[in-house]
Order: sequence, then C-alpha cells, then structure tokens
Amino acid sequence: MISWPTIYHVLEETVPLYVAMIVAYLSIQWWKLFTPEQCSGINKFVAKFSIPLLSFQILSTNNPYDMNLKLIFSDILQKSISLLGFAVISKTCCVEKFDWLITGFSLSTLPNTLIVGIPLLKGMYGDEAVKLLSQIVALQSLIWYTLLLFLFEFRAARGMDTTTSSETARSGTPAPMQERHEEGQAKGVSARCYSAFCFLLVVGRKLVINPNMYASLIGLIWALISFRWRIQLPLIVSNSIRILSDGGLGMAMFSLGLFTALQTKMIACGTKKMLLSLGIRFFLGPALMVISSYAIGMHGTLLKVAIIQAALPQGIVPFVFAKEYNVHADILSTAIIVGMMVAVPVALGYYFVIDHPRL
Amino acid sequence: MISWPTIYHVLEETVPLYVAMIVAYLSIQWWKLFTPEQCSGINKFVAKFSIPLLSFQILSTNNPYDMNLKLIFSDILQKSISLLGFAVISKTCCVEKFDWLITGFSLSTLPNTLIVGIPLLKGMYGDEAVKLLSQIVALQSLIWYTLLLFLFEFRAARGMDTTTSSETARSGTPAPMQERHEEGQAKGVSARCYSAFCFLLVVGRKLVINPNMYASLIGLIWALISFRWRIQLPLIVSNSIRILSDGGLGMAMFSLGLFTALQTKMIACGTKKMLLSLGIRFFLGPALMVISSYAIGMHGTLLKVAIIQAALPQGIVPFVFAKEYNVHADILSTAIIVGMMVAVPVALGYYFVIDHPRL
Repeated sequence: MISWPTIYHVLEETVPLYVAMIVAYLSIQWWKLFTPEQCSGINKFVAKFSIPLLSFQILSTNNPYDMNLKLIFSDILQKSISLLGFAVISKTCCVEKFDWLITGFSLSTLPNTLIVGIPLLKGMYGDEAVKLLSQIVALQSLIWYTLLLFLFEFRAARGMDTTTSSETARSGTPAPMQERHEEGQAKGVSARCYSAFCFLLVVGRKLVINPNMYASLIGLIWALISFRWRIQLPLIVSNSIRILSDGGLGMAMFSLGLFTALQTKMIACGTKKMLLSLGIRFFLGPALMVISSYAIGMHGTLLKVAIIQAALPQGIVPFVFAKEYNVHADILSTAIIVGMMVAVPVALGYYFVIDHPRL
Repeated sequence: MISWPTIYHVLEETVPLYVAMIVAYLSIQWWKLFTPEQCSGINKFVAKFSIPLLSFQILSTNNPYDMNLKLIFSDILQKSISLLGFAVISKTCCVEKFDWLITGFSLSTLPNTLIVGIPLLKGMYGDEAVKLLSQIVALQSLIWYTLLLFLFEFRAARGMDTTTSSETARSGTPAPMQERHEEGQAKGVSARCYSAFCFLLVVGRKLVINPNMYASLIGLIWALISFRWRIQLPLIVSNSIRILSDGGLGMAMFSLGLFTALQTKMIACGTKKMLLSLGIRFFLGPALMVISSYAIGMHGTLLKVAIIQAALPQGIVPFVFAKEYNVHADILSTAIIVGMMVAVPVALGYYFVIDHPRL
C-alpha cells in the first residue's frame, strides 16, 4: 500500500518542477519581465543546450549492456499497435487522414519522459525507475522521434504531389503547405525530385541539425565505451558538461512556463478536441501499454514503471515538430499545458490503482 | 609546495567556467544563434533569477555565527584605504574627480567572488575557502554594493546641482546627466528636493528593486535562524530553490560569454586605460589586501584566501551600475573581459608565490 510519506516524497520531486514553471509564467503575466523575443532566446538556449545536455547526461550514465529487453519490446509493441490503430481509424473516419495518424501516434505514445518522467518516477520507485526510464528516453530520442520526422516529411511529400497534380483545379486557393515546399516549387525544383532519395536527404538534414539527436547518440556511444572498458570521463570534461546541464531541468520547466504564458489561449483547440486529446494521452496511451506489457509478460516494478510513464503529460518535441509542419499544433499545445496541470494527480492516481495489493 | 595534481584540480574547477563562456561566445560569433534582444532575455534571466538564487544558496548554507572577524576587519580596512587613497589621488590629479574615485574603488576592491572566486578557491584550498569567501560575498552584496550605489547617486546629485547653478553659462551643451534627472528637472521637481531625504529615497528604491540584495539579505536571515535553532528548509522548498539555482553558475558564465561576444570591441577603453585598470585590479587590489591583512595580523590559509580573492577578475555588478550611471563603463567592461582571460594564470601565479615555503 502507498503511504503518505511516499506521496510527500513524490511531491518533493515534482513540486519544484511546477515552481520553476509558475515563476516563469508569473514573470510574463505579472512582472512583464521578458518580451516574446527575449523568451524565444531563453527557449532557444533550452532547446539547443539544456535539453541535449540533459539527454547526454542521462544516457551516458546508464549502462546500455543492462537493458531490459521486455521493456524495449513492450515499448515497440505499444507504438506499433498505436500506429496500426490510428492508421485504420483515420482511414475510415477522418477527413485529414494522415494528420490524425500522426497526431494520434504522438498523443498516445510520446509522453514527457525526460523532464517530467524522471523526477516523478524517481520519487515513486527510486533509482531503479530512472534506470528503466532512461532506456525509454534513449529509444524515444533515437528511434521514435526519427520515425515521427519521417511521418511528417512523408505527409509533406504526399501533400506536394497532390498540389502539383491538382494545381489547375484549386488555383487561387492557397494550399496549406509549408513554405519550404512552396519555395522549392518556386525555384522549379520539380515534384518528381521528391523521390525516395530526396526524401531521405531532407529527413537526414533535419536529424543532423537536431542537437538532441546528436547528444543522445553521443551519450549512448559513450555509455557503450564507458561501461565496456570501465572508463570514466575525466573530471575536467564531465564538469564542463555538468556546468551547463545541471540547470537543464529547471530551465526546461522555466521554458515550458514561458511557452504557456505566451499562448493567447490556454485551450487553443477548443474543449471537445482538448478532451479527446487528454483521453488519448492519459487513458488510451497507458491502456495500450498495459496490453503490450501483459502480452510481453511483464510484472512487478517494471510493469508499474512502464504503465505510469505512459500516463505522463505530452512530450514537447512532438509539439515542436507539429508546429514546424503545421499539423494540429493547437491540439498538442493544449495537451502539453492542460496535461502538465493534471500530471501529478493523474500519475498519483495510476500509482494508487497499480500499487493496490490485489493487482 | 604546490604539486601538479593541485594545479590540475584547480583547472578541473575553472576550465568548465571558460567552456560555458566560450560556448556562449561561439553561439554568437560563429553560429549566430541568438539576436542581441534574445541575449538580453538570457542575461535578464541570469540577473533576476540565477545570480540572486546563487547568492541565496551560498549565504543560507554558511554559518553566520562562525564568521571570521579578522577577515571582515581586513576587508573593511582594504576598502577604506582604497576609498581614501583614490579620494586623494583623484582630487589632485584627475579632471573627473568623482568618476575616478568610484572607478578606482570598484577596480581595486570589488572582484568577482561569487561566480569565479568560489569555484577557483575551492579548487585551491577546498571547502574552508568556500566558507571564508562566502563571508566576503555577503559583505559585498549587503554593504559594498550599497555603498557603491550611494557613491553613484551622490555623484549624480552633485552633477545635478552643478547643472542647475550653471545652466545659463552652459546653455546649448547637453549635460552628461542621466535621463532620470533630466526628467526630474523637466517635471519641475526642484534641485533642492535632492536633499538628504530624496537622496536616500532614490538609493532605497534602487536597493528594493535589486533582487540580489533581497536574496542576500533573506539568505543571511535564514542562515541566522537556521544555524541558531538548527532548522533546515523542508526538502520541498530547498528543491524548489535548487531547481533554478543549480544551473546558476553555468548560466552566469554563459551570460558573460554573450556579453563579451556582443561588445563591438574587446578593448573598449583603449590600451592605456586597459593596462591601468588591469594594474589596479590585479596588483593594487591584492597589495592593499596584503597591507590590511598584515595590519590585522592574519596568517595561514586565511591570509592566502584573502590575498587570492583580491586578485580575481573584475566583478560584474560594478559594471552594471557603471553602465547605468554612465561612468567609465568601457573601462569596467574591458577589465571584466581581459580580466577573465588572464584570471586563472594570475590566480595560479599568486598561488605559487604565496604558497612558497619561505612566506
């Protein structure tokens, strides 16, 4: 059974996250301390330095030879079911088929494991949870975000094919495309170039300029070397990394607070879509994880960590992509903001239900 | 005698500071990552959150009942000699008398103890040095910056008296005053109002809006309570502070790097004034400390820490004030930038000389 001291311990780890976020929110809404341009400076610092360094720190200090295969398989299974399910549903029900496939996949399977998940689950299950979660963080950074990028680029490529073939029919109506593609067309780069090769090139270029992908990859490679030959980074190097990564968590939450304060509406997508997105995030996602975990045969702390991490609020990276490709960014922004507000109660709810002795 | 491992240990603590600074410098000069407005957002975050929280953390965790009176007296003596000396010199030699009194005092007695001093001296003399230095940091934040503000306001008030009395004689020539005073005059607030009361009011208002002053005061008060009754902050509160203060050091160095990269010139004040300012900072300041320390009767580690802390690069707060009051800001900016570059060699130089067995 869960004791009050345990809950207080979870709050000790999570309340500070909210404090950093609220301070940022107030610094905009009350004190008018930062202009939107100044905020984007802080957000850029977080995206280019804090989060990549945080990813590196988490991945490089965890033993990759001690991976939990069951967890990895259930993670892959959950994502596969989600992809298949949303492909079927969006094909039969929705107008914007591909859009809902991507958004459904993001909402149901890509929670905020790094910033919110690690401190929260550490409070619940201690360092063992950190070890397990860091494996999910690694998969998320290295595989799932790459897949998401593929999906977005595939959608963009398909969209462009449609435009070129139906240009005369729809002339005068601005197509909801990205600037880059319009530029590409303006420059005469023909649509045919968008073949498999060009497609891979664009995705590759996106990955190359993403510092988080680099940081995760380097972190994993270093962990492979470090745990194989039992080498540690010289203190002068690890201190140099830590001086900027130490504040990463606080800065990331601060940036989330700025993001919230700068939105014109808390619920940008309307109440109906908000409820739908929260339902997908907090119920469908964990439900898929329960199915996958039982199918793989997980139990104990491993099972509990797997389920609770699936019930964390929406991750930020999918929102960043969604905004860039202009696909349901309002839904993801709402899912992040409202999700953060209910994150701790939801997680504690799952914690209560799961830790019940009968389970 | 100093061993190579000790020097390497000092470098382990100080190289990361430079790395954070260089990364910031490159992010502007090479990668063009931040616009000046975005930089000012990051700098504002550092000034309003990182540095005050860092001050709080340092002051609140050090025992104020275990203050070293000798250190405090020698600190006061050093500052007094400097003030007196520069008052005499500037009265006899300089054109801008009061300006050089202030700048001389800043350069000779107000080094960067918090950001550069604590990690550097920790590398040299361990936690004992941190304990001693935090007392100097407390005095700096609570007494010497307040005095500096008084001097700047006094200069401004004197300047205004001069302007009002010689307005007809100098009509047409814009007086080198601050906007606030011009506004004051425009509004008819007469110059007489700038009596002792108004003067104190302005200084008080400046102190009230300075979060670092608050943070230092609260930190000291909390330390007085905490060490008297042996109470600790609840983990939920201290974690909430630490989430933003943890990255303080790195962010402050990053901000210093941005500051350097945004300057049009590295040596804004010309070579002659640069050499003069570095001479005051790195030789006169420590020399005054040596005199004061011997006069008070200090020896051992205490003496060494006192001298080396006096040979740290220029502090940032005096530059911020100098820029605000438009008094030799170019000299202080140069002293900070060039000072940071030679900080570690200079400190190691003093370390070598002082730790020589014959001393």
